[in-house]
Amino acid sequence: MERCCFIFFTFTLLLFYTTSEASHCSIKGLPLVRNISELPQDNYGRGGLSHITVSGSVAHGMKEVEVWLQTFSPGSRTPIHRHSCEEVFVVLKGSGTLYLASSSHKYPGKPLEYFIFSNSTFLIPINDAHQVWNTNEHEDLQMLVIISRPPVKVFIYDDWFMPHTAAKLKFPYYWDEQCQQEPVKDEL
Amino acid sequence: MERCCFIFFTFTLLLFYTTSEASHCSIKGLPLVRNISELPQDNYGRGGLSHITVSGSVAHGMKEVEVWLQTFSPGSRTPIHRHSCEEVFVVLKGSGTLYLASSSHKYPGKPLEYFIFSNSTFLIPINDAHQVWNTNEHEDLQMLVIISRPPVKVFIYDDWFMPHTAAKLKFPYYWDEQCQQEPVKDEL
Repeated sequence: MERCCFIFFTFTLLLFYTTSEASHCSIKGLPLVRNISELPQDNYGRGGLSHITVSGSVAHGMKEVEVWLQTFSPGSRTPIHRHSCEEVFVVLKGSGTLYLASSSHKYPGKPLEYFIFSNSTFLIPINDAHQVWNTNEHEDLQMLVIISRPPVKVFIYDDWFMPHTAAKLKFPYYWDEQCQQEPVKDEL
Repeated sequence: MERCCFIFFTFTLLLFYTTSEASHCSIKGLPLVRNISELPQDNYGRGGLSHITVSGSVAHGMKEVEVWLQTFSPGSRTPIHRHSCEEVFVVLKGSGTLYLASSSHKYPGKPLEYFIFSNSTFLIPINDAHQVWNTNEHEDLQMLVIISRPPVKVFIYDDWFMPHTAAKLKFPYYWDEQCQQEPVKDEL
């Protein structure tokens, strides 16, 4: 009897888990017009970040473009990283600093600094190492981020003087990780 | 003397025209971080529209994605059209109606209607005929529009029952037209 209860409990738990996974990671059952406030948001273990995949490859079947809504609390930032896709930012709220280095040397080197602000836009040249930092102590920095060639394949640097060849590939990236894992099998 | 003045005047005018063209249609001299409020906006002959190319193929050298900021006054709308690229909308202000028909018949047919609203997002399946209409009588409808495979190649329908094969190609599209023309030569 106890064993039966355990099996039933485990089965229910797995069923629940599989169902809730589907709502995050599958386009099935999603309405065509979706309220962005109701989309899943998470920090994916990155302090100070709120990430929402507005329209994504793994989450919504996009093949050529992906759109994120990201909010950085004061002081929080992306890692120093590069990717071989186009990326456009549209700053919706707040301000901060873009650090950008070229890809023409063996390592990024000291980056150029750009002030970014509400209602500004900028694009990151393909493969240039960059970092976006909410350097405004008083306000969140909120941006729409658009990338091509999803899902994103990110190379991460420990610092600006790490050789490009030593940067570490993080794939799948944080928000795609959950959905790209093998689905949980509901076998007992 | 009169002829000389005329030539000088014409030369100055052409020089001014060529220079102002360059600022609209070339990435040369553009700052990396750009204030969206200061970007060129126009209705391109389409009543009730304000279009800004936030990050564009012809205007800014994008190869894989393009971002527009579009505002539709009450009652204004896109033509019924289709394109073979991905398209994502993010509604920033206002509300309206999306009309969407599938591409699986010989003509679009009666479209489905979807209510679109501030802070909503939706994507248009590749090649599905669609129309976005500001059906809100009291407020502008403002959206960020993201497309892949720029510059956009649009097929336009007179109505929902026009065969797909009769839809008319408009390429280059309104906002790319100016920059894709041969540059004005400053010869007299």
